[in-house]
Amino acid sequence: MLLKRTHTCGELTKEHVGQAVALNGWVDAWRDFGGLVFIDIRDRYGVTQVVFEPEAGAELQAQARELRNEYVVGIRGTVAARLPGKENPKLKTGAVEVRAVELVVYNASPTPPFEINGPEPNEELRLKYRFLDLRRPELQRVFILRHEIGQLMRKVMTDMNFLEVETPVLGRSTPEGARDFLVPSRVHPSHYYALPQSPQLYKQLLMVSGFDRYFQIARCFRDEDLRATRQPEFTQLDVEMSFVEDYDVMTMMETLVAAMAKQFGGEELKLPLYRIEYHDAMERFGNDRPDLRYALELKDVADIAEETEFRVFQQAKEAGYRIRGICAPGGGQAYSRKDLDGLTEFAGSFGAKGLVWLKVEAETFAGPTAKFFKPEVQAKLRERFDAKAGDLILIVADTQAVTSQSLTNLRSRLAAELKLYDPKTFHYSWVIHFPLLAWDAEEGRYAAEHHPFTMPMVEDLHLLDTDPAKVRAQAYDLVINGEEAGGGTIRVHDPVIQSKIFALLGLSPEEAEEKFGFLLSALRNGAPPHGGIALGYDRLVMLYAGLTNIRDCIAFPKTAKGTDLMTGAPGTVAPRQLKELHIRPALD
Amino acid sequence: MLLKRTHTCGELTKEHVGQAVALNGWVDAWRDFGGLVFIDIRDRYGVTQVVFEPEAGAELQAQARELRNEYVVGIRGTVAARLPGKENPKLKTGAVEVRAVELVVYNASPTPPFEINGPEPNEELRLKYRFLDLRRPELQRVFILRHEIGQLMRKVMTDMNFLEVETPVLGRSTPEGARDFLVPSRVHPSHYYALPQSPQLYKQLLMVSGFDRYFQIARCFRDEDLRATRQPEFTQLDVEMSFVEDYDVMTMMETLVAAMAKQFGGEELKLPLYRIEYHDAMERFGNDRPDLRYALELKDVADIAEETEFRVFQQAKEAGYRIRGICAPGGGQAYSRKDLDGLTEFAGSFGAKGLVWLKVEAETFAGPTAKFFKPEVQAKLRERFDAKAGDLILIVADTQAVTSQSLTNLRSRLAAELKLYDPKTFHYSWVIHFPLLAWDAEEGRYAAEHHPFTMPMVEDLHLLDTDPAKVRAQAYDLVINGEEAGGGTIRVHDPVIQSKIFALLGLSPEEAEEKFGFLLSALRNGAPPHGGIALGYDRLVMLYAGLTNIRDCIAFPKTAKGTDLMTGAPGTVAPRQLKELHIRPALD
Repeated sequence: MLLKRTHTCGELTKEHVGQAVALNGWVDAWRDFGGLVFIDIRDRYGVTQVVFEPEAGAELQAQARELRNEYVVGIRGTVAARLPGKENPKLKTGAVEVRAVELVVYNASPTPPFEINGPEPNEELRLKYRFLDLRRPELQRVFILRHEIGQLMRKVMTDMNFLEVETPVLGRSTPEGARDFLVPSRVHPSHYYALPQSPQLYKQLLMVSGFDRYFQIARCFRDEDLRATRQPEFTQLDVEMSFVEDYDVMTMMETLVAAMAKQFGGEELKLPLYRIEYHDAMERFGNDRPDLRYALELKDVADIAEETEFRVFQQAKEAGYRIRGICAPGGGQAYSRKDLDGLTEFAGSFGAKGLVWLKVEAETFAGPTAKFFKPEVQAKLRERFDAKAGDLILIVADTQAVTSQSLTNLRSRLAAELKLYDPKTFHYSWVIHFPLLAWDAEEGRYAAEHHPFTMPMVEDLHLLDTDPAKVRAQAYDLVINGEEAGGGTIRVHDPVIQSKIFALLGLSPEEAEEKFGFLLSALRNGAPPHGGIALGYDRLVMLYAGLTNIRDCIAFPKTAKGTDLMTGAPGTVAPRQLKELHIRPALD
Repeated sequence: MLLKRTHTCGELTKEHVGQAVALNGWVDAWRDFGGLVFIDIRDRYGVTQVVFEPEAGAELQAQARELRNEYVVGIRGTVAARLPGKENPKLKTGAVEVRAVELVVYNASPTPPFEINGPEPNEELRLKYRFLDLRRPELQRVFILRHEIGQLMRKVMTDMNFLEVETPVLGRSTPEGARDFLVPSRVHPSHYYALPQSPQLYKQLLMVSGFDRYFQIARCFRDEDLRATRQPEFTQLDVEMSFVEDYDVMTMMETLVAAMAKQFGGEELKLPLYRIEYHDAMERFGNDRPDLRYALELKDVADIAEETEFRVFQQAKEAGYRIRGICAPGGGQAYSRKDLDGLTEFAGSFGAKGLVWLKVEAETFAGPTAKFFKPEVQAKLRERFDAKAGDLILIVADTQAVTSQSLTNLRSRLAAELKLYDPKTFHYSWVIHFPLLAWDAEEGRYAAEHHPFTMPMVEDLHLLDTDPAKVRAQAYDLVINGEEAGGGTIRVHDPVIQSKIFALLGLSPEEAEEKFGFLLSALRNGAPPHGGIALGYDRLVMLYAGLTNIRDCIAFPKTAKGTDLMTGAPGTVAPRQLKELHIRPALD
């Protein structure tokens, strides 16, 4: 029998004293004081204390004594003020308790494999008993936030006249990009659907159809090896617009970003957001998604290095290497000799063969290589880095790639260790004008930096024929705290340019027609200029929830091996099922 | 170069006269009058007339003369009032035109394979060129409506404290129910994910997790042979609640139904909706999803038939058949002898070996069998059916199933042909208390009428042991205009009852544990009483859009053979892809 609840467990306050109420929920804690039995009862909305007094009768008290954590119960009783001194100001319901007159146990529970309110259990156990793991208040909070982010996205997009259109999950395999999940067809032997890596082509077709403004909170799939920040299925806010240039898409999305920043970051953003050219981001931060909560800019010091006697620098010059560095405020004081060995090792893990460190002191530099830096050279370095006594200058002489990777990682490590920023703040920026193509030496052809449908910058169009690697794309990434929160491009709407790009990517006209014929046909039939973006929904939840593991942001996630430890998916199936799909295992 | 639009093509009115504007869109029509060239330009929001006058220059006029339908253009000009008599009151923009001063062609288009504003093309062509088909205003309207229905669903559910939680698409195959789509695992050879037929078990687990109120607009998949009203992937509003009984779920959903009825049907619904027992629906309408826009109730006339001399009725009685009929107002006048032969044939297509028809006249009955009905028997029939002169009585003597099926189909055919209802109205009702199980003679076991997780009615629980076929379920279907718009049940939250039902369904305890162990484990670990419902989103769009083909409600639908005629999915894949998935084709 159901004791229909009159209130949730997060609702009762002094205003309700004297009312007859009914609550439903889980036993969160119990205390048997002989004369009095106390039960905390919990639901999604909160926790309420229930007391079984002697006046309620021996039978009811005996029943209450049988309760254990995680039993599911219904309780009827009267709201009463707690005794003075027994109030719990941390709880919304902490001023009251319910004096029980009736108790119904809906379901019992053995002692759970981990405490719902205890320390975080190991992840394997959490995933196996996900239905218990999700009872933990930390996770309940994440999925309430996830819901709110989704609803806000939909509201803002709808208010801006975007239509949510659902695109197919059962699509066609496009071998560009990541590996596809395949679905064998029962009706068409030897034919396979593919799960979408993104709704990219469908959303472009919707623009050709004149939908003008499209969005979808879309499930996407990539059959790739997983890491802590990746899942085989993930969700993105997918957006496409017609008759726009790159700045229009960015401006439009900033409305959403500002709404999110306000609701979930408690911050009034100043728009437009900071925009940085890809080339500048690589030069100043060694990274195309720089964390701009702190400065710590990379500086080229090759010209100054030339004035030293330091052989490492001379060799670097001969090798055509770059010589770049950063200067960490307070790092000279903070890091011991041993710490600096650790930083050198850390830089080495990104390929740096050495790390030159200089502790900036009032008058001079300290460190094993300081002797190579004459006073006038030291002065120039001080000036380049705006260095003050107590700072730490770190210099790497190596290739473009190694200097970028080692210094950008040093940069984020030092910023965190030296507490150069408040980790609770958010910094939003756009990185723009990415290269269109990258030369793939192994395949002997160009590969698309974003995807093959990206429009070059108009002023670079002529370079498609002469120097494709120099062509910049109408591409933009939204970067939050050093994470790529989203990215987009203006698409090619001209079938001639699209064919030219397919050719650069090594597709013959026949292959292009076979793989992307429907797109080319759409472009030839009145395609408008269009572009769009996709934001990583899971990642936004992670950012605003202050988490670092994507699995905590997905209700039923999979392990790094793609297994659902709760249901056991993927599982074995009946031979009949494979036969119907015209496949059989090929094991070797 | 993009001429950035200042307005949409559905926006300009007399208020804008004199303003400089820019529009973007597709050429919807063109008329060359020599001195004047007129272009209608179209976007999602409307159509605007543009005129190229001699004053704009010969070059611009020449450029305009090159335009053809479906070219994508940008136009700059000045808004002017149309000449008196040239206004088009049917268009929001019909009072004005734009006098062009600049024209940019973004993309050309050949003559499309069908006219965007012409008659409906054949479906194969429509699906192949879906990106053009979707330009047709009828379809644009459908997807705007679809968007609005989805947003309303989300708003109403969110307002009622439901959380949208996403459940996995890559799940585990559960061989109960329809055929699964499978996804081979690359990491686990011979293991397969299955695409969900619904999020059923996940949403139940969310209740065990204490989420209390869940919804999701969820993509679902069934690998079944398709019909006009079915697609391999479809979308449902999926809902689950804790601590509820069946009426609570119905009451909650009525809030949403009323909001949809108001916004999309223009109707203030009176709540609660009409509720009819499954048994009564079958008896009164021969159908568990009766169309209640009209009465035309089935009546049992076995007792009256007994009083006739008609041999067919006597034989029916001996065979234990039922004798049931309907009476169609005005049908006696409307149907000719030949029409009635047609109705007899129609009834025969549902297994009826004959159809007794009686035209009700002022004093007597007419028809070949009327002679068997004596005046006092006729009087009783008149009374039973409340029949009046001009009406038509149709009687079938056959099994329960055949009388139900033939009469329910006659009922809906006659109601449509005799215009007994306004096809633009909606009637919403609940059919409740379905049977829990059906005996599957072929398999020699019971099968679940809904699914194996459905809770019996409490007062029928004892019948599980003695007479399972008699057990009624806590199940409810939402019926709109004779279509099942949704359905749900209260679920089993007691692990003992769940095991008992698995046993009735022929699962040994080991099989139950192997297939549904995680559910049983969840039920044993503090599962609350819970229940839910799913509404067919595609079908609701179809109903409110006044359509009959589900493919018109899905942006990129598949044919009856599961093919996407535009992309060619399912397609062939590279042998490497199959090898990575450890499968090979098994053709024979």
